[in-house]
Amino acid sequence: MKILVVNSNTTQFVTDTVVTEAEKSASSGTEIKAVTGNFGARVISCRTEDAIGAYSTVELVAEHAHDCDAVLIAVSFDSGVRAARELLSIPVVGMTEAAILTACMVGGKVAVITFGSRAVPLYEEIINSYGLNDRLAYIYGMQVPPNFDVKNIRDMSEQLLKEINRLVKEKGAESVYLGGAVFAGMARDLRDHSPVPLIDGISCGIKHAETLAELNLKKPTTGSYLHPAKKVIVETTESLRKLYSELPE
Amino acid sequence: MKILVVNSNTTQFVTDTVVTEAEKSASSGTEIKAVTGNFGARVISCRTEDAIGAYSTVELVAEHAHDCDAVLIAVSFDSGVRAARELLSIPVVGMTEAAILTACMVGGKVAVITFGSRAVPLYEEIINSYGLNDRLAYIYGMQVPPNFDVKNIRDMSEQLLKEINRLVKEKGAESVYLGGAVFAGMARDLRDHSPVPLIDGISCGIKHAETLAELNLKKPTTGSYLHPAKKVIVETTESLRKLYSELPE
Amino acid sequence: MKILVVNSNTTQFVTDTVVTEAEKSASSGTEIKAVTGNFGARVISCRTEDAIGAYSTVELVAEHAHDCDAVLIAVSFDSGVRAARELLSIPVVGMTEAAILTACMVGGKVAVITFGSRAVPLYEEIINSYGLNDRLAYIYGMQVPPNFDVKNIRDMSEQLLKEINRLVKEKGAESVYLGGAVFAGMARDLRDHSPVPLIDGISCGIKHAETLAELNLKKPTTGSYLHPAKKVIVETTESLRKLYSELPE
Amino acid sequence: MKILVVNSNTTQFVTDTVVTEAEKSASSGTEIKAVTGNFGARVISCRTEDAIGAYSTVELVAEHAHDCDAVLIAVSFDSGVRAARELLSIPVVGMTEAAILTACMVGGKVAVITFGSRAVPLYEEIINSYGLNDRLAYIYGMQVPPNFDVKNIRDMSEQLLKEINRLVKEKGAESVYLGGAVFAGMARDLRDHSPVPLIDGISCGIKHAETLAELNLKKPTTGSYLHPAKKVIVETTESLRKLYSELPE
Amino acid sequence: MKILVVNSNTTQFVTDTVVTEAEKSASSGTEIKAVTGNFGARVISCRTEDAIGAYSTVELVAEHAHDCDAVLIAVSFDSGVRAARELLSIPVVGMTEAAILTACMVGGKVAVITFGSRAVPLYEEIINSYGLNDRLAYIYGMQVPPNFDVKNIRDMSEQLLKEINRLVKEKGAESVYLGGAVFAGMARDLRDHSPVPLIDGISCGIKHAETLAELNLKKPTTGSYLHPAKKVIVETTESLRKLYSELPE
Amino acid sequence: MKILVVNSNTTQFVTDTVVTEAEKSASSGTEIKAVTGNFGARVISCRTEDAIGAYSTVELVAEHAHDCDAVLIAVSFDSGVRAARELLSIPVVGMTEAAILTACMVGGKVAVITFGSRAVPLYEEIINSYGLNDRLAYIYGMQVPPNFDVKNIRDMSEQLLKEINRLVKEKGAESVYLGGAVFAGMARDLRDHSPVPLIDGISCGIKHAETLAELNLKKPTTGSYLHPAKKVIVETTESLRKLYSELPE
Repeated sequence: MKILVVNSNTTQFVTDTVVTEAEKSASSGTEIKAVTGNFGARVISCRTEDAIGAYSTVELVAEHAHDCDAVLIAVSFDSGVRAARELLSIPVVGMTEAAILTACMVGGKVAVITFGSRAVPLYEEIINSYGLNDRLAYIYGMQVPPNFDVKNIRDMSEQLLKEINRLVKEKGAESVYLGGAVFAGMARDLRDHSPVPLIDGISCGIKHAETLAELNLKKPTTGSYLHPAKKVIVETTESLRKLYSELPE
Repeated sequence: MKILVVNSNTTQFVTDTVVTEAEKSASSGTEIKAVTGNFGARVISCRTEDAIGAYSTVELVAEHAHDCDAVLIAVSFDSGVRAARELLSIPVVGMTEAAILTACMVGGKVAVITFGSRAVPLYEEIINSYGLNDRLAYIYGMQVPPNFDVKNIRDMSEQLLKEINRLVKEKGAESVYLGGAVFAGMARDLRDHSPVPLIDGISCGIKHAETLAELNLKKPTTGSYLHPAKKVIVETTESLRKLYSELPE
Repeated sequence: MKILVVNSNTTQFVTDTVVTEAEKSASSGTEIKAVTGNFGARVISCRTEDAIGAYSTVELVAEHAHDCDAVLIAVSFDSGVRAARELLSIPVVGMTEAAILTACMVGGKVAVITFGSRAVPLYEEIINSYGLNDRLAYIYGMQVPPNFDVKNIRDMSEQLLKEINRLVKEKGAESVYLGGAVFAGMARDLRDHSPVPLIDGISCGIKHAETLAELNLKKPTTGSYLHPAKKVIVETTESLRKLYSELPE
Repeated sequence: MKILVVNSNTTQFVTDTVVTEAEKSASSGTEIKAVTGNFGARVISCRTEDAIGAYSTVELVAEHAHDCDAVLIAVSFDSGVRAARELLSIPVVGMTEAAILTACMVGGKVAVITFGSRAVPLYEEIINSYGLNDRLAYIYGMQVPPNFDVKNIRDMSEQLLKEINRLVKEKGAESVYLGGAVFAGMARDLRDHSPVPLIDGISCGIKHAETLAELNLKKPTTGSYLHPAKKVIVETTESLRKLYSELPE
Repeated sequence: MKILVVNSNTTQFVTDTVVTEAEKSASSGTEIKAVTGNFGARVISCRTEDAIGAYSTVELVAEHAHDCDAVLIAVSFDSGVRAARELLSIPVVGMTEAAILTACMVGGKVAVITFGSRAVPLYEEIINSYGLNDRLAYIYGMQVPPNFDVKNIRDMSEQLLKEINRLVKEKGAESVYLGGAVFAGMARDLRDHSPVPLIDGISCGIKHAETLAELNLKKPTTGSYLHPAKKVIVETTESLRKLYSELPE
Repeated sequence: MKILVVNSNTTQFVTDTVVTEAEKSASSGTEIKAVTGNFGARVISCRTEDAIGAYSTVELVAEHAHDCDAVLIAVSFDSGVRAARELLSIPVVGMTEAAILTACMVGGKVAVITFGSRAVPLYEEIINSYGLNDRLAYIYGMQVPPNFDVKNIRDMSEQLLKEINRLVKEKGAESVYLGGAVFAGMARDLRDHSPVPLIDGISCGIKHAETLAELNLKKPTTGSYLHPAKKVIVETTESLRKLYSELPE
């Protein structure tokens, strides 16, 4: 099986971090193919950049998904996940979607830790759009020092554990999702130091992508996740126009 | 006052239809400046095309909003409305958002009529994302003949009135929103033949855009609708990169 | 256009405060006609007084709305707004309804500041009754000194700004509604000192009343906002009985 | 124990119907004291009349509750129930509130049958205001012949049973509330002919009023159900002004 | 009337505490018949023990309900309440269900105080399962000293009152439910020291059980609360198998 | 990896059907260990039998889970899933929970088909308890002939497909869950005849159980899914008492 990991951020370091965890999580026999966005923000962190990233996702999957069995959107805003799901015939999951659904099976309410207070309403909107807001304990936007370099993310382990403990004690969190592609792998590292399960969007996303591919569910032939209608799309990438022109009538 | 009307569909006919109604609805002294998308679908009708359209909206407002007082997104999926609201310092409203909020002030529950069953879940997701699903009576996807040309939209008047009456009687609709940019002006035409108020997204959008401009509310200096952080955005249009480079720190 | 501003409180000072802001907000060509309740509480501040006020609203609009184009209920509990909307053929909006709907178009969640903790559940019930509770960040009942005279409301500016900042920081408010007729005009004054948009129920109410009048939506001929059935109403004011006797069959 | 039954409709026949059922339902030792509104509609059937009725309720309880142990609002819109609850030191229940809460203890979802489609949104708003909309199966507005005289309500038994059966089969109703004061007693009569429990607002209301009186719960000394603040209320009935003037500081 | 009080905890002291309050609350003429679980936990305090307790409830009512008019489940998790309601022809209420429904009639939001933070999500799930979560102010898990003996529950009065006051002030509670069978009677004792009504699940449960018995509502002959289908149940208690074998076809 | 498949129904045929599908769905290297309930109903079909089944689940996992890596509850009411999850240190999933979460990743709303109208409210309660009711299109209780033998379930294929098509067309279902352990394998058989993905609770449950085992999430050391406290449990099976006695303090 081959899973396409789509990083619509335009930062290779994030892709590399994601791939490391993806490969650790994948079943033997699963190949990871990763692509990085080539336009937009280095790290998507607001609605404007998410809109750019969603379009980037659409173009990336049009270009790269043809030989894959499933897609994982490796941006924690799940940029473009529904569009890609509709466009393709193979399963598509978002890392935050996969994480929160996994937390559901762990039981109880899940807290989200992300970077900065700005992103908090965005996560709330995303999780609400999945109909899962009743399962949310709290979304916490952890402050990072100015000019923080995401390459040093592991320096934040102690701060993360302090916040995890606070969310468990004060907000009733029964699991905690580390909401950010750059956190990939940290749930694994911090596992034994946390009082509750830590959820990694990449490892969950890889496992759910494998599951969906193995379940071999049918691409709908009706409804809102049907392929787009075959039509002319103007002035987009060659791949996207080609994919559109080859859609079933 | 100048209002930028953004049609992220790539069809001039839709822009023209929208402008006609926008001008009828605008206060004297309000100028309408309309722009049409230059990439993506002729008529946005699925999630993929909405993702393309949202990016198009971002680029269009980056290019054209600088001399305007407010923006109306004239696509009934409100493609990119939150991104544009965040990016700009002037008010931005979506036509469906404006319509449903107007229906709230009319009282009771509102039904939506749109084209085809495929779009129904998309409208549900949009209205849910505004927190307004409790005000929804029903969303109806009216079937159109194959190869229907939207230029002949007024031929559907009789069918529309039949459905409006049905939604009132069977679904408890106390107002009906005609959900589609191409319906612009039809609420005005059919007003006297409907048992309940008919809501036009364009006329509502123009009035709400005027209101927000006149209220002169402050652009937030914090939170999720703050300007994006000043940063490098790679490989997008010149206007968008320029706008990003000129954002306040 | 003539807008009837209904203050069902029995305090002329509140009416005067409201009218000052209403006139500043109205479009040129809009005339403000204000009326004050003649029975009930000086300042409506609990459910009993709201029930009296709602009846007062019904009587006031029956007496005074005949030559007007729209009505604004200038009591922050929107006392009687749905009854008046049903009774009359012209649009009716409540100041809190108008404020929260405006906040929706600003984006994100809105906090409400009002006087005293007693009113907090009432605002929650009102906003819930509009189906808008998902958009609420928090409702804060600011303590006022004993024997506080509402005429000195502007003395509270500093305290208000402190609370606004706190609601933004701690409760994720992306806008703040100053919930009370007596706050009319203060959003305008404090605009530049607040990190987020401040919402004034009177200015929003006037603009939305103008919008609804200009949209010229049809009075429903069916449903729950249809005119009351023509019938005998006993022992109410002459105007109300007359209006009832002249309703269409 | 003495229970004040408040009929804010101005129709003695409704009061008589209600009292008959109230007396059958009351425990031995419970005295029923019934009062009828003296202004407003014969039968409250829209929002305007409900606003008048709510004020009437306030005046009626101010006049008549002083020697009673609990109050039942015997109007199916529960007109003024929250205001009366706040104003008085004794328990106050509404007949629809009592009915739906009883249906909760029966288990499953409850359907409501009332007169005419106009009232449907009003019941929905009322039940939603109690936070109980998740327990609703459906609200059905049964058509009545033009000029139907409520005195002939028992002629509708067969039609009622037909609708009850339909609501059970098609809407999943596990109990049915007959929503209207004039239905008092019919649940008792039709009990053996219905497949599910029939809920009578008057019998439930009397039992819950007795329960609340016997539980002897404390009148709150804080919060939104605290007595109104002692203050001058102008131009209302003598009883209401007197009650206000005697409130604790 | 005879009410079966089912304590599925296997602790006689809890039964005794409950019976004392039940007898104080019952109407003259109501007899209390109490039974205690004979397998499972001494005090049910987690999901596993609740699952055992629910089965115990089913067996206890199968054994003991035959000569009773109503059942009260005297475990604050309402263990097995829906199963017992379905199985029997007489009314069944849970103590927490009865308490929260009573709080609804008191008005406003209710807080719950229970033992330890572990139970908080369980109460939330229970109250949510009744569709009543909109009426919840907060659920507080009060810490108890290690090795606390529930027989000394009255030693906690002062701590309880402190928490009640805090829940009123900080969480907007307008009533407080003491959530635990062992609290039976304490609401009565602390009544005059609390600023808001204190709700006792046992006294409410007894009154509601009496009400339901007196209302004499029909056992449904369809739907999900119909008797189980007559069938063979293997390897359960003699009473349960007998009851099953005697169900109507 | 070894997965314990728990069938709390007391019917070997159901276990056999489930195991066949479980083995088809499992990854190579995954061993299926199946157990069947030894008390309670042949096929759990109401709340009473679900309460018995939940206790049976607790006893079955206490007896059989010790050498397994994950548990799948193979009863479509997910009887006892939360209790087992709390009791054990290995992951536990319910087949309906797994199915609905999978449907979430497919996108859009899911319909449920089950046997008979009686079970409809139970599925609604279960799915609501997972916080997933916003994702539900409809729950349909398909009628089966009297004396239908579940061994002939495949005879219903045509009827199932007819209902699937109807749910897609009339209720907007974008996937359909076949809700019943006895349906195991039918989604696989009917896949190519359905317009939308068909969801099998057993195959989804096996894949999610594998995923959770591979993710190796920590057993919480606090919160409501912590092990029960070590204590004496009276009069249950030897295995359960032993497991309780060996719990960490």
